[in-house]
Amino acid sequence: MAESRHSGTVRRSSRDAFIDAAGRLLRRQGYAATGLNELVASSGAPKGSLYFHFPGGKEELALAAMERSGERLRGAIAAILTSTEDLGGALGGLVDALAAGLQSSDYEDGCPIATVTLEAAGDSPAVRATAASVFESWLAELEARLLRAGLSAPLARRRALLVLSAIEGALIVARAKRDLAPLHAVREELVGLCA
Amino acid sequence: MAESRHSGTVRRSSRDAFIDAAGRLLRRQGYAATGLNELVASSGAPKGSLYFHFPGGKEELALAAMERSGERLRGAIAAILTSTEDLGGALGGLVDALAAGLQSSDYEDGCPIATVTLEAAGDSPAVRATAASVFESWLAELEARLLRAGLSAPLARRRALLVLSAIEGALIVARAKRDLAPLHAVREELVGLCA
Repeated sequence: MAESRHSGTVRRSSRDAFIDAAGRLLRRQGYAATGLNELVASSGAPKGSLYFHFPGGKEELALAAMERSGERLRGAIAAILTSTEDLGGALGGLVDALAAGLQSSDYEDGCPIATVTLEAAGDSPAVRATAASVFESWLAELEARLLRAGLSAPLARRRALLVLSAIEGALIVARAKRDLAPLHAVREELVGLCA
Repeated sequence: MAESRHSGTVRRSSRDAFIDAAGRLLRRQGYAATGLNELVASSGAPKGSLYFHFPGGKEELALAAMERSGERLRGAIAAILTSTEDLGGALGGLVDALAAGLQSSDYEDGCPIATVTLEAAGDSPAVRATAASVFESWLAELEARLLRAGLSAPLARRRALLVLSAIEGALIVARAKRDLAPLHAVREELVGLCA
């Protein structure tokens, strides 16, 4: 395995494993419920290396996980939004992709950062600021796509906020109901509004 | 004080105090971060009475708090939605009221049940089912108001899901950003859509 070759690779692999494990656990159960022992077990990385990679402990690891999840989803959003010239089709495709992810995870995988944002925004300024920056990166993709479709700058900003908010909220309600209907409704309404 | 008069009142007051404390803490920090000691301290009720009133412990208390917060907000939603004949004005008033609550709590008091829903929906079927039932009670108020405004039944349902989802999502994004802009944007878009 690559891990055995040299120490630089070992460090990088353990670090990555911790970040991915934190991303999975934060998405499904949130910050407070995710203990360090569970993180280590889920990562498969040696426990002793956690504080080597993340001297700031759980909070520092959570920030890295939020940034990584945020950047992955930003890339996915950008790819879907630019996959078709049709704005309604692009927005519909985005909702469809998130709905498919929620359903295939048995209603576990909603937004990767909403849970930790709601739990920790009041206690951790760093978590709150990271959440704000991730949301802004997603908003920027939506806004750019809406501008390209010909909306004025103020309307593109406003509609991007509506689209992000409606999707975030629908992911919560769909998770509670174990039913994709909220996402389907939001899809139809957003496509209708932007067609 | 009423508490000293007879034991029926004492029991009822302690029970209420636990439920209100749980509602406050769940709204601000979520389920996992809220320990029983903090709940007891925040309630001001005697610790020994917690398991008397809630033999099921934290989960049973959380369900009672979700139901109470949900019912209070349902009443507030109904009052605002019926306060004016103008549908756009009614929806705008609803967003305004939630925005005012978020701002006056220094961006702490968002949706009273979203945090616990995201955290605990995967682990606790009872929390998930209670969240679904609270969301449905709010949806029913929105749907009834949209029907009264003349929308067809399928459109009223779809738009109620959009309105609830957009508001829930905007409360998250606004909390992360410490900025009411997401709520203002959603307000303008929803009022425009429903005018």
